[in-house]
Amino acid sequence: MTMQDKKTWSGRFTEPVAELVKRYTASVEFDKRLAPFDIHASLAHAQMLEACGIITTQDLTDIRRGMTQIEHEILNDKFAWSLDLEDVHLNIEKRLTTLVGDAGKRLHTGRSRNDQVATDVRLYLRHAIDELHELIRSLQSAVIDLAIQHTHTIMPGYTHLQVAQPVSFAHHLMAYFEMLKRDAERIIDCRKRVNRLPLGAAALAGTSYPIKREMVAELLGFDGVCENSLDAVSDRDFAIEFTACAALTMTHLSRLSEELILWMNPRFDFIDIADRFCTGSSIMPQKKNPDVPELVRGKTGRVNGNLVTLLTLMKGQPLAYNKDNQEDKEPLFDTVDTLTQTLRIYADMVGGITVKPAAMREAALQGYATATDLADYLVKKGLPFRDAHEAVALAVRFAEQRNCDLSDLKLEELQQFSSLIADDIYSVLTLEGSLASRNHIGGTAPQQVETAIAQARKYLAGPN
Amino acid sequence: MTMQDKKTWSGRFTEPVAELVKRYTASVEFDKRLAPFDIHASLAHAQMLEACGIITTQDLTDIRRGMTQIEHEILNDKFAWSLDLEDVHLNIEKRLTTLVGDAGKRLHTGRSRNDQVATDVRLYLRHAIDELHELIRSLQSAVIDLAIQHTHTIMPGYTHLQVAQPVSFAHHLMAYFEMLKRDAERIIDCRKRVNRLPLGAAALAGTSYPIKREMVAELLGFDGVCENSLDAVSDRDFAIEFTACAALTMTHLSRLSEELILWMNPRFDFIDIADRFCTGSSIMPQKKNPDVPELVRGKTGRVNGNLVTLLTLMKGQPLAYNKDNQEDKEPLFDTVDTLTQTLRIYADMVGGITVKPAAMREAALQGYATATDLADYLVKKGLPFRDAHEAVALAVRFAEQRNCDLSDLKLEELQQFSSLIADDIYSVLTLEGSLASRNHIGGTAPQQVETAIAQARKYLAGPN
Amino acid sequence: MTMQDKKTWSGRFTEPVAELVKRYTASVEFDKRLAPFDIHASLAHAQMLEACGIITTQDLTDIRRGMTQIEHEILNDKFAWSLDLEDVHLNIEKRLTTLVGDAGKRLHTGRSRNDQVATDVRLYLRHAIDELHELIRSLQSAVIDLAIQHTHTIMPGYTHLQVAQPVSFAHHLMAYFEMLKRDAERIIDCRKRVNRLPLGAAALAGTSYPIKREMVAELLGFDGVCENSLDAVSDRDFAIEFTACAALTMTHLSRLSEELILWMNPRFDFIDIADRFCTGSSIMPQKKNPDVPELVRGKTGRVNGNLVTLLTLMKGQPLAYNKDNQEDKEPLFDTVDTLTQTLRIYADMVGGITVKPAAMREAALQGYATATDLADYLVKKGLPFRDAHEAVALAVRFAEQRNCDLSDLKLEELQQFSSLIADDIYSVLTLEGSLASRNHIGGTAPQQVETAIAQARKYLAGPN
Amino acid sequence: MTMQDKKTWSGRFTEPVAELVKRYTASVEFDKRLAPFDIHASLAHAQMLEACGIITTQDLTDIRRGMTQIEHEILNDKFAWSLDLEDVHLNIEKRLTTLVGDAGKRLHTGRSRNDQVATDVRLYLRHAIDELHELIRSLQSAVIDLAIQHTHTIMPGYTHLQVAQPVSFAHHLMAYFEMLKRDAERIIDCRKRVNRLPLGAAALAGTSYPIKREMVAELLGFDGVCENSLDAVSDRDFAIEFTACAALTMTHLSRLSEELILWMNPRFDFIDIADRFCTGSSIMPQKKNPDVPELVRGKTGRVNGNLVTLLTLMKGQPLAYNKDNQEDKEPLFDTVDTLTQTLRIYADMVGGITVKPAAMREAALQGYATATDLADYLVKKGLPFRDAHEAVALAVRFAEQRNCDLSDLKLEELQQFSSLIADDIYSVLTLEGSLASRNHIGGTAPQQVETAIAQARKYLAGPN
Repeated sequence: MTMQDKKTWSGRFTEPVAELVKRYTASVEFDKRLAPFDIHASLAHAQMLEACGIITTQDLTDIRRGMTQIEHEILNDKFAWSLDLEDVHLNIEKRLTTLVGDAGKRLHTGRSRNDQVATDVRLYLRHAIDELHELIRSLQSAVIDLAIQHTHTIMPGYTHLQVAQPVSFAHHLMAYFEMLKRDAERIIDCRKRVNRLPLGAAALAGTSYPIKREMVAELLGFDGVCENSLDAVSDRDFAIEFTACAALTMTHLSRLSEELILWMNPRFDFIDIADRFCTGSSIMPQKKNPDVPELVRGKTGRVNGNLVTLLTLMKGQPLAYNKDNQEDKEPLFDTVDTLTQTLRIYADMVGGITVKPAAMREAALQGYATATDLADYLVKKGLPFRDAHEAVALAVRFAEQRNCDLSDLKLEELQQFSSLIADDIYSVLTLEGSLASRNHIGGTAPQQVETAIAQARKYLAGPN
Repeated sequence: MTMQDKKTWSGRFTEPVAELVKRYTASVEFDKRLAPFDIHASLAHAQMLEACGIITTQDLTDIRRGMTQIEHEILNDKFAWSLDLEDVHLNIEKRLTTLVGDAGKRLHTGRSRNDQVATDVRLYLRHAIDELHELIRSLQSAVIDLAIQHTHTIMPGYTHLQVAQPVSFAHHLMAYFEMLKRDAERIIDCRKRVNRLPLGAAALAGTSYPIKREMVAELLGFDGVCENSLDAVSDRDFAIEFTACAALTMTHLSRLSEELILWMNPRFDFIDIADRFCTGSSIMPQKKNPDVPELVRGKTGRVNGNLVTLLTLMKGQPLAYNKDNQEDKEPLFDTVDTLTQTLRIYADMVGGITVKPAAMREAALQGYATATDLADYLVKKGLPFRDAHEAVALAVRFAEQRNCDLSDLKLEELQQFSSLIADDIYSVLTLEGSLASRNHIGGTAPQQVETAIAQARKYLAGPN
Repeated sequence: MTMQDKKTWSGRFTEPVAELVKRYTASVEFDKRLAPFDIHASLAHAQMLEACGIITTQDLTDIRRGMTQIEHEILNDKFAWSLDLEDVHLNIEKRLTTLVGDAGKRLHTGRSRNDQVATDVRLYLRHAIDELHELIRSLQSAVIDLAIQHTHTIMPGYTHLQVAQPVSFAHHLMAYFEMLKRDAERIIDCRKRVNRLPLGAAALAGTSYPIKREMVAELLGFDGVCENSLDAVSDRDFAIEFTACAALTMTHLSRLSEELILWMNPRFDFIDIADRFCTGSSIMPQKKNPDVPELVRGKTGRVNGNLVTLLTLMKGQPLAYNKDNQEDKEPLFDTVDTLTQTLRIYADMVGGITVKPAAMREAALQGYATATDLADYLVKKGLPFRDAHEAVALAVRFAEQRNCDLSDLKLEELQQFSSLIADDIYSVLTLEGSLASRNHIGGTAPQQVETAIAQARKYLAGPN
Repeated sequence: MTMQDKKTWSGRFTEPVAELVKRYTASVEFDKRLAPFDIHASLAHAQMLEACGIITTQDLTDIRRGMTQIEHEILNDKFAWSLDLEDVHLNIEKRLTTLVGDAGKRLHTGRSRNDQVATDVRLYLRHAIDELHELIRSLQSAVIDLAIQHTHTIMPGYTHLQVAQPVSFAHHLMAYFEMLKRDAERIIDCRKRVNRLPLGAAALAGTSYPIKREMVAELLGFDGVCENSLDAVSDRDFAIEFTACAALTMTHLSRLSEELILWMNPRFDFIDIADRFCTGSSIMPQKKNPDVPELVRGKTGRVNGNLVTLLTLMKGQPLAYNKDNQEDKEPLFDTVDTLTQTLRIYADMVGGITVKPAAMREAALQGYATATDLADYLVKKGLPFRDAHEAVALAVRFAEQRNCDLSDLKLEELQQFSSLIADDIYSVLTLEGSLASRNHIGGTAPQQVETAIAQARKYLAGPN
């Protein structure tokens, strides 16, 4: 009797679980965050059981009453979580039975922890996705708000971290808007596959009770039911797909972070980040460090690691449910937490960036950023592109030896490299001229970037 | 002049590239597989340049003529690939210029290798996705063809690799149909993000020529253009998202492989795989090994590794293009190859599986597979589920000590554990009874599985 | 003044850190486990400062007194950890200053958190390695204790999970002894590189105080000092190398786990695991699940993920310390915890395995396990190995068609395949004969395995 | 007979292997690089077989003659590799038999491809490790050669990529010397575990021939034999441990690469890399890109990916050999190739770096690099460190508002922050003073760095 009290499945066992094993196998310490979803799903399950005549209306009333009490206890930190009861499910069920008696013991009819936990995690993840989607949009908003001020702020566009061509800071920022837009799309595509109901699969084969899975799906807002019970309890695709989405978003933010860190280095000096996002040093009194972008860059590894954890976990598992799967929760929760916090702090921090246009402009003038414009100029005068490219390369080498910019060369000097060069060349070689000339969709011309920003605003104003 | 001949960008350089560096940085050995896509994209680019008046109609004609010749040479293995020319793009452009002169040198007007390679890879990947999608469907078809024969073939459904409840082999197979269905959905979602045109981004900022990117997009069948030029050349999301999709599909196939390997072990003896999919041993004359599923299981690691490679590659890269990105191709190509070959061979192999129903049935009888049915029986007679569960647990322990099945116990023996048990219990304890009772959507009852198969067929008959 | 009170580095800042940022950047919640090592290192540092005349003897006395008090508070859970104080280091230093005044403020002389945390983590990890090394040896002991009972217990040796040749269960177990032996070697090699002192590197460049790093190294039991200050504060090799070691050990245990799970499946029925290491099902009353090995298999993914996290973290970081590095602790701690718990529980569980020799023997008889012996027999009679192999392959096919073992074939039937076969063949075809014949170092003959076990015992009795 | 001709194990099979399967399972395309090691190991095996009387002296002579011929054919690209013969082992054995008849068929006596391939790969890897060890030392040499010229070249030491304290460029470079030293140590530790002989394990259980494994070990230069046959054929630890070592070395080189890329950016302008290690752009005529460090940074992902591939591969494999293991070769070979090429090119490239001391010095003056020196100065005058830190923080804020350096403040201004400041402060605030003051082991003082370089040279002159 005492063993029966302690353990839900102990009638078959001749000795109790070892202490060490209990701690090794229990999940309640991390899965208790599923409690609200577990209760929500249990209530829908109970309502269906009652509708199908599997439990009585009185049972349902009792269960609801008990669950209200439990929710209240959890919310107020009064719930006594027990390691002996392994996980969130048994903790809640046991408490329910204490509170309402036999109705509590009837709740688990027609389900198993296998389909129960899969349902809880999907509800949790759907909720997280909706929140993350909003946070991505907030960050996009912050990016736009900064970009709109800088469609004429010229900075060097780098490739290979060498000066390539002038771009506007707005244009540069809007690249991140595009990345985030894909992130939002991707997470919404993922949501479709998260939002299917496993409940009703029971342990693995379905149940012999006359249940109505569609009713539960509707009550819980699922788009449909998992159509094979073995798949329903063994599938963790949703966790992996979500974590892959998160890894990409973190990768994007790690790129932006790398740039913020570079730009705040005194050699670049392109930006400053507000003090409230920075910290100092315990030894060096002068330090102001861009901790947030550094941590974001570092935390990318964490999410990549979680993805590997999950993929490794599932590799080669036979059907249906195996205990290995319990290991899906911590990496998933950690991924959700990391991404949520990172997006939230980033949306804030973007507003705390001070741009230093003079340094950006100065940098754009180091490295022959308009050399391509000179080549294009020659092409427009009839030279094949490859020949124009070579002529300009020689001109750059010439200027470099003189330690000056192309626009500092005299017309005669320039004409050494092509007789097609006339004195209209000097306007072509300005940063502004270069910028304005890239005037097609996706180009850096201020007009194009303004259009892009306007469209972005419209997109954000639209439905999520 | 000779340097100029050799290198597209050498006018600015004072010494030639070191041999070691040439080999280290060249990509032509692996990127030449992009040749057909490179030519296809170049032709669309040239057609647009002509339509926009940037090159002449004669130039376009020359380019087309040259490209036809080059395609022919490549197809017939007559094309002389040169390491000195670094990559597929310069190899083709150089040859074109040799064949048609100045028109060849004009082709690169308004573009850069940065947007060119991004376009080529997207065209390549789109093509691969379409092929993979077909292969997934072929495998789904093969799964269905095997399943439909086995809706009444009973095997043990395992959880924790311990006997849980009886399921049909068809039901088990259809779990994989569901996984593959998600794989197909996911890859099609990914395709949307692959199928956007980077061309026109040029090096990173767009170009000063009056190009029409939408025209090129339409000619090449893209759904739209990349809307920010910096993003267009630096984005490798498509490769990562695709590889994540592939990793999930391989994970599913590794699970099926694990099962086939187990089932072919003589202790299980559930199936045999046709000799043509197996190999023997160089030392042990009796061996017949399930090499294909073993390799599939092993190759899962390879695709997971490729995913890590790509994520690591992009982490912390500042915008826009960096040479690091050249490392995207080998893992992507390897992923496409691995998944393509694996799906193709799997679709074949499923048809070569011989099922052994007798052994499956025997196995289903080892391990009290219908114990849950006994508990459900008691619940239907009024016992709360938790109490029924405990009663049956004790009955199982009793039977196990006697080394017999529950159905071998006498009525009086069973009644020790609950007075609610009557002699209608014996039909409940049969495998067939258990199976038939799980008769709801997703359940293992033959009727349900037949419906699921019928729907699956309909799905496959529908549009891709 | 209040800001100064709150923050160690705030004099330079015009606004306090945002709440969100404080939580995002603080590490005290996870790095407080370093407290004993932090105190230990601080005391050695203070002792050296005093010896070098940098602080007074009174300062040292005060610091020691304060630290004794702090240690006591932490041990008794009376220490008030504060998020505002960021990390374990500042929490302790602040408390010290409260307790002992100016001496507390002098403790940080000549060091920085950069070298301090590196020192703490190395002390922590050295301690963990020593504990893990002991645990590996305990598990090896448990393996030997089981093996010694089974040098004559014959089971099928599998390759490709197909019956290959008979082996003893002891021999099979001893393969894991070898793996663990490499694990122990590897972790001890790793320890050498962990056990070097970074302290004295200060922020990154060393310090202007006349410190004696060798004295601190000796006091703390380090083998030497890190010989370059920039490297000292930026190096996280030790964490990565250790995690790679841990991943290999987990991989070994995941292999053993896979086998335990298979062997406990009723089709195999080779072993049983004591009830205290298993759990049941909330729905299926008959279930007894091998949770521990399943979780071990699953947790392998976790450690692999941690390794990827750490490698990703360090990739492409410029020198010296970056905030990214703070992300090294959680994966490292999680790896230590996972491996520690897993080894501990495994060492216990191996003693709870019941071996079922009859089923093992039965399995060894399914699949022509002695076919190689027949081939070797023919070779010894003069046939080249390749010809012998082919002759036996045909004999196996013949026997398989008759559904019998090779030893069930009549002499005339066997002689169909080679006239060299005589009636001494039947002893060659027994399991015992096969086993005994593999009598060389590393072979499965009982005599060899007994020797191997004796040597293993000797190894374990030796110095760690 | 024809089947027998084609396949080594086909006597047992009723149908030939499908074409698709043949290609999927064959390894000859990548494992043929093992040929010299395969031949070397076969010759040692044959010599032992002869010494043990298992084959005749004539057989040995024939085998040697045949192998000499085969080696010659392979070296001269005359060897006809056949996909039908699966792998390098069967290709060579088959050719041997063609060349020398029955002796060739006897070579495989007492071994299996399982132990054969494990032996070949270990021989290959040992060879690779020895080469890599030399390459690491070459790179260390190149680092020292550059460092020795720059013990007085002052640059900003960064933490968080913000100016921290002045260091010498030599000191900075020597941090990489230390990393490489650990890499060399680690790979040598790994070599111990690589250099053990699996041969003699045969398929998995040992062999019934009276072989002498120690003799083969000695002939092949192995340190010992693998002491358990099951472990011998299933162990891939060596590949994983080596790849983990390689990942760390690549991580170090990726850090150096990141720095080279930053330093070559015109904002930093700390160094130039010789033209022969750079490439240009197909569109931007002015570009000179640091391709090599960029690729190195990118290729780090590749090696990390290979590590994940190998770990995933082994996870959860039951003993002994499974076909999955064939997938170990490509990631291992790719890792060896990547690391070899990278080290080789890096050792070259370091010599092609031009240092720009003026820009480094200028950068060291941006960011209050000597603020810590001011704090230390105050401490030496009696202020507790924490109070000194705060005083300097306020001084920095004051100087920053005036947009000047600390050394630009007047004595009275400085004294505002502490009355302990006297006019000896100005020498403390110089870069040279700061550098010289960090004069302890590991510190950046020129004297210390010169000593470190001298020791490094001695280390490299010592035995490998």
